[in-house]
Formats: sequence, structure tokens, C-alpha cells
Amino acid sequence: MSLTEKFVDKIYHATPDGEAIECAKLGVLDYLTSSYAGKDDAGVHKLLKLIELEGGFQVSPIIGQGRKSTPLQSALVNGFLAHALDFDDVHTEVRGHPSAVLLSTLLALASTNDVTGKRFLEAYVVGVEVMARIARAVKDSHYEKGWHNTGTIGVLAAALAGGYMLQFSRDQLAQALGFAATQSSGLRCHFGTETKPLHAGLAARAAVLSVNLTMVNFVNNSNSFDGKGNYFEVYGEGTENYSSTLLDGWNDSWKIASPGLWFKIYPFCSAAYFGADAALRIGKLNVEDIQEIIITFSNNTDAALIHHNPKTGEQGRFSIEYIVSLILQGQPLEFKQFEGSPIDSVSQTIINKTVRQNVKEPSTVPRYTKVKIVFKNGDMIEETSTTPKGSPNNKVTKQEIIEKCKSILKNEELEEKWMESIFTLNDATDLSDLLCLI
Amino acid sequence: MSLTEKFVDKIYHATPDGEAIECAKLGVLDYLTSSYAGKDDAGVHKLLKLIELEGGFQVSPIIGQGRKSTPLQSALVNGFLAHALDFDDVHTEVRGHPSAVLLSTLLALASTNDVTGKRFLEAYVVGVEVMARIARAVKDSHYEKGWHNTGTIGVLAAALAGGYMLQFSRDQLAQALGFAATQSSGLRCHFGTETKPLHAGLAARAAVLSVNLTMVNFVNNSNSFDGKGNYFEVYGEGTENYSSTLLDGWNDSWKIASPGLWFKIYPFCSAAYFGADAALRIGKLNVEDIQEIIITFSNNTDAALIHHNPKTGEQGRFSIEYIVSLILQGQPLEFKQFEGSPIDSVSQTIINKTVRQNVKEPSTVPRYTKVKIVFKNGDMIEETSTTPKGSPNNKVTKQEIIEKCKSILKNEELEEKWMESIFTLNDATDLSDLLCLI
Repeated sequence: MSLTEKFVDKIYHATPDGEAIECAKLGVLDYLTSSYAGKDDAGVHKLLKLIELEGGFQVSPIIGQGRKSTPLQSALVNGFLAHALDFDDVHTEVRGHPSAVLLSTLLALASTNDVTGKRFLEAYVVGVEVMARIARAVKDSHYEKGWHNTGTIGVLAAALAGGYMLQFSRDQLAQALGFAATQSSGLRCHFGTETKPLHAGLAARAAVLSVNLTMVNFVNNSNSFDGKGNYFEVYGEGTENYSSTLLDGWNDSWKIASPGLWFKIYPFCSAAYFGADAALRIGKLNVEDIQEIIITFSNNTDAALIHHNPKTGEQGRFSIEYIVSLILQGQPLEFKQFEGSPIDSVSQTIINKTVRQNVKEPSTVPRYTKVKIVFKNGDMIEETSTTPKGSPNNKVTKQEIIEKCKSILKNEELEEKWMESIFTLNDATDLSDLLCLI
Repeated sequence: MSLTEKFVDKIYHATPDGEAIECAKLGVLDYLTSSYAGKDDAGVHKLLKLIELEGGFQVSPIIGQGRKSTPLQSALVNGFLAHALDFDDVHTEVRGHPSAVLLSTLLALASTNDVTGKRFLEAYVVGVEVMARIARAVKDSHYEKGWHNTGTIGVLAAALAGGYMLQFSRDQLAQALGFAATQSSGLRCHFGTETKPLHAGLAARAAVLSVNLTMVNFVNNSNSFDGKGNYFEVYGEGTENYSSTLLDGWNDSWKIASPGLWFKIYPFCSAAYFGADAALRIGKLNVEDIQEIIITFSNNTDAALIHHNPKTGEQGRFSIEYIVSLILQGQPLEFKQFEGSPIDSVSQTIINKTVRQNVKEPSTVPRYTKVKIVFKNGDMIEETSTTPKGSPNNKVTKQEIIEKCKSILKNEELEEKWMESIFTLNDATDLSDLLCLI
């Protein structure tokens, strides 16, 4: 068997267990919550305008809009709005945002196909598994070169998750993978603009198309992971042995549970959570007294934080300098700080005093960010974080996700319906309840 | 100004001249002819089935189908069918198929926007220019790594051509480029399957979306060719100076005229035209007498011919071994030889006697393919081609393109209407005539 055949065989035989399914339910709740939080984002309305000009059968719900669209359109818009505020889950092995792509794809497909709640949750587990494994197999150099894993790898994972959900044969899974691989795209240079969340929507849309092309028996070279010019050769280094990363240990444990999804408590990039945690331990300072701020990252873990000197709050989602400046001023880390408006002059002054460093550490050293303040009087203070809230060793609890949901929805009746529907999803014969509620 | 700003400034100020416009008319005729030839391809009907499930406003014509669809859908299907038989134009500097992507995009946009015939033709000229320049700037290593330029570069060129056609500002052109660059995809490992022509359709669809996103003021990082993680860094080597390739000599001459589009006379990959030309000079042989066939290419010019041992005629479009075997048997090079059916046993036997070689030559040596036959009795015969019919130094004439059209349409009334409409296109106040005819 080729590597591609072995890989789709693992997917075909995947049987996610109870713990993974419970994690998947939390993932669905957090995804819907984050999407609902982004429902009034300006970008959503631009996309809605576009799809109104297209028309099409209105069968798939768009979250928080009280309207439907075609499956492709809903995948695009839901993928965007789930990720619009960067408030949705990430995954350290994915180095990107799994649920925005996966669940937007699965919901679009579930709206036009017969799917049980259990199969939907299992497919989501499989999608996270596939996304994490491909991301590890294509290596960190993929991300560091400039690719946005949420887009480039998300489309492959979502197409395979979709195919799994619809009980595709192994040949069909390989075809779906082929259509996804040849649509894989998304550049990180767009971080801090509306186009970053658009990547999640484009990947979900491309995944739905990949599944649909497979269903009408469109044909590709079904061996995307093998032979000259294969996915890993073109998108990665393609030289090392990554087959064990793709193949070993399926059904033993699940990436959705271990290391698990990283649920967010602030609407900014998770790569800034370590530095934010360190700065929060320092707390509010008299910013006039600060001479210099030195922020140190281990092993290029600031790659996602592309804005050293952001001009807007939206760019500030990807700027440790901006986020630390807010914390040292004692400002809350709320949505309004991370919108399109220009950054205020006090923050700008603090940003100008900030220096970023990167230290190459042995792989045995846990990921960290250190924040060091040097005062004008010569005093110094520093804090280091390795386990910010949400990260794999300091997980957000079920109750905290429920609280996050309540704080966004602010509608007790809807909250109850969401909880009821999501937490009993593995007993549902179809997804109609959930699709009606969103 | 950044490189991106300088590049879009060149596009903004582009004023294609008369010779380029005349070439563009031939390009339109050949594109429609090649599309019409592919109108009954099985893949087209699979795509039509998909778009029927989507619905949408029926405003953009699908070539040869007597029906309309949404602009995005028409870009997808027309892009596919233009390239379905590999009978459409190529361009040596593009190393891919410009018109399938460019014209499918421009027709889709022209169906919902006010566009004169002159502006449409000028935009097409600009599109070929952009596609060839980006392909040269990203270097041959892009193609050789496994990317399919028709898809990866086509989307950028088509988005910019579309923006130019709609009189975009420089800022808007930079935005359209950004949306296209972040959707750039397509792997060559799919050559010889329906997914190769699908790349042209996907690129055209993504280009229309890029233009539409720009029109609703969606926002990206507008400097796709500058800074860390820019297009050339991620999709090319990104190390050398390519700005002169992108910027010098605009409005002096046009890539659509010099070296010009390469119009096809056979429905297979142009990289096989050199070897086919050499084999045709050898002519029909008693294939029983052949001991060995040695086919020699200069400088990796066989990269597109990925099938050394094809199983079907469709794969045979990308196999010099198969094409030479047909010629040596005295078989015609017609559509039926290049369809999905299995390759016959006599051809298979000849293919098994064939060896392919590649010789590194100085760049001053013109591209060539040599076919050498070694007979069982020890005799040898060889022929070398550097200028097959269609290639830049042996162009297909206007009259020959008209003949190609007649041989496909086989409908005198329609032929006349096409010629009338296309050859007076630069005087047309809009494209309604042309859009009705296709």
C-alpha cells in the first residue's frame, strides 16, 4: 500500500472513544460561541453582500444571521466568522485553528446529507486528528516559511473529516484528499487583516467542494502523499520520514483530547498568551517609569505575532508589544481593544519602548515567554510563563466554556437550547435541532 | 514605492497596442474553439451536476451548453472546459495555459459589469503579460517543484486582468492581487486526470472571487510581493532580484505577441510537440523492426510529460512515449487517441521499448527534442525538432486558427457569427453579442 492508502485506511477505520467525543462537544460549544461573538464583524457583512449577488438554494445556516445559503457559501461565511475575532480554539500541534475550518465544513455537509449526531462528532475528532498529524508531518518549516496552516492544512483535514462523516470508501477518501491538496493555500502575511479569518472560510469552502467533486466521481491522481511532486514535497521539506507521524497510534489516543483543543479566553493570537500571562503577573505599572520592555520567546514561538509595531487593534491581535502595553496600563483585554480603530498614543509610546528577542532552546525546554521590565531608576522586574490559561497544561474547564458562552449569548433561553442540543448530540438521529438553533 | 506598488502601477498604466490586440482576437477565437471542442467532455457534465445542486442567478454563459450560471460557476466550468482536451493555447514564458484562466475570468466578470470590447481585449493582453512576467520572476524551479503554473500563477494574472478591465485603482489592484496570491494552488501530480483542467477553472473562479472581494472592500495586506512571507518567498526561491522581470519594458512589447501565444494543432501537451514533430519527420515504420527508441530532451523540458508508461489516452496527453508510438504506427493524432480508454497493446509494446533522456545544455542552445530509432538489424535513424508547428518560431497563422475553428464547430452560420463578433470586438460597446453566441 502507498502512504496515501495507508493513511486513508487509518481514517476509514477510526473509532473515536468517549473522552474524545466529550472534548468534541466542548469544541462545538466553543466554536458556536466564538462564531456568535463575531456575528456582527464588518467582514461578515461584506461576505453576505457577495453571496446575495450570487443567489443559490438556501439550505445551510449561517451562524447568528437567521438566514441560510448554499453549502459552499455557508462554509465560506461560517469559517470566516468563527475565526473573525481570533477567539476560536487553536491546537498546538496543528499550529492553527482546527474547528473554524472543520466544523464549518461538517455543518455545511450535514445540512444536505443524512448524518447522525454521533457521526458528526466522530468526524470532528477525526478532522482534528488528521490536521494535527499532517501539520506535524509537514513540519514547522511549513508554517515558518509563510504558510497559514489553518488554510493550507485545514482544507485537507476538513475534506477527509467530511468524507469520513459521509462514510466514504477508502478510494473516495483518497480522492477527497487529492482535491483538497490541490486547493491548499493561505499566506500568513495577511495576519492582522480580514483575510486571516477568510482563510478558514476559503479552506472550509474548498473542503466542501472536494467532498462534492468526489461524490460526482470527478477524478484526480489519488496518491497525494506519494510520488514525485506529492503534497509533502511541495508544501514541506519532503525529505524526512514522516510516515510514523501520520500512521502510528490511531485509536490509542486522540489529538482533540491530548494535548487537546486550546480554548481562548482573550480575542487575540494564542502565541501571545504566554507573554500576556507573564505581563499579567507583573500587573499595572506607572508607564512613565518604564525605560525598556524586553520580551523573550523560546524557539521562534513568536512567528505568528507578525506585527511588531501595529497600527490598529486588529493588527494588535498579532502583536505581543501591543498586548503587553495594554496589560501594563491596566486595560482590560476586551474585544474593543482589538478592532480596526487606530492604536492610541500611550500604547504606541509603550510599544516603542519594547524589544523582542528569540532564544534557541533545546527541545526539552518547555515553550515559554519572558517579560522583563527595566525601569528608568535602574530597577528590573521579570516574569516567565509556560502555562497560560487555555494551553494544554492549564486547560479551560467545561464550566469556563459554558461561562464564555453565557457572556457572549446573553440570552438564557438560547443558552439552554444550545447546551441541551450540544451535550446530547451523540444521541441525536440527525443534526436538524442544532442546525435550527444556530 | 514597494515592488507591489510599482507592479500594479505598470498594470494601471498599461496601454496595449494594435498588434497585441490583433493577437488577443486570435486568442479569443482559439479559446472558444478549444472550449467548444471540450463541451461534451465527461468532466463538464460532472461539474454541471454540481452547480445544478447549488442554484444561483443565471447570468454568465457556459460555453457550448446553451445555459447560464453564476459568474463564479461559469468561471469554474469554462476554465475547465477550455483546458479539458489540452487543445488550448500555451505560452512558453508562462509555462502554462493563459487563456483558459484569463478569458474564463474576464467573460464571467464581463457578464455582470459594463465592459467595452476594447477594454476586454486590452485586459486579456495585460493578463498574459502579468502571467508571463510572474512566471519568469518565480523561476522555473516553481514549476519543477511540482506547481501547476496554470493554477498557481493564473489566479494572480486573472485577478489583475479582471481588475484592470474594471478600471480598478492601484490600491484595488493590489488588493485583488492579495486575494489571488493567498488562493494560489494547483499540483502537477494531477496531470493526466480531470483535475489538471480543473485547475484552470479553480483559478478562474478564485480570480473572480478576488475581484469581487475587492469590490466589497474586503481587506488584505496589500503588499503581496514585499516583506517577509511574500509570494515569491513562499512560492519561489525568493532570493534573487526579479524586479526587472516584473517591471521593465511595459508598453514596449507585449508577451501575447512576442514570443506570442502558442496555438495547438494536436490535443496533447505542448512539451510533446517537439518530439512529435521529430517523429513525424521519421514517419510510419514497421514497428516489429524496432529494437529501441531513445528520446532526448534539452534542459528538463519534459517536466510536464509526467507519464512515462501511461495507462489511458488521457494520461497519454502527457507521455512522449505514447505520442511517438502513435506516430510510428502511422496513427492520426486525434481526440479519440487521448481519451479515458486504455492504451492498446501494440502501443504498449512500443512504449516499453522507449527510453527517455535529458541533457543539460547551455542556455544558448535552443530547446529541442531528438527522437532516435535503433532497429533490430543495427540501423539507426534520428530526427531533431526545435520549431514544431505552433511554437514561437513556427507560429500557427490566423487562417490556420480559422480552419481549426471550422473543423470543430462544423456549423457555417455559427462560424460566421463567431468571426464577425470576435474580429470586430474592439469596436463593440459591450460584450453582449459575444456572450450570446457562446
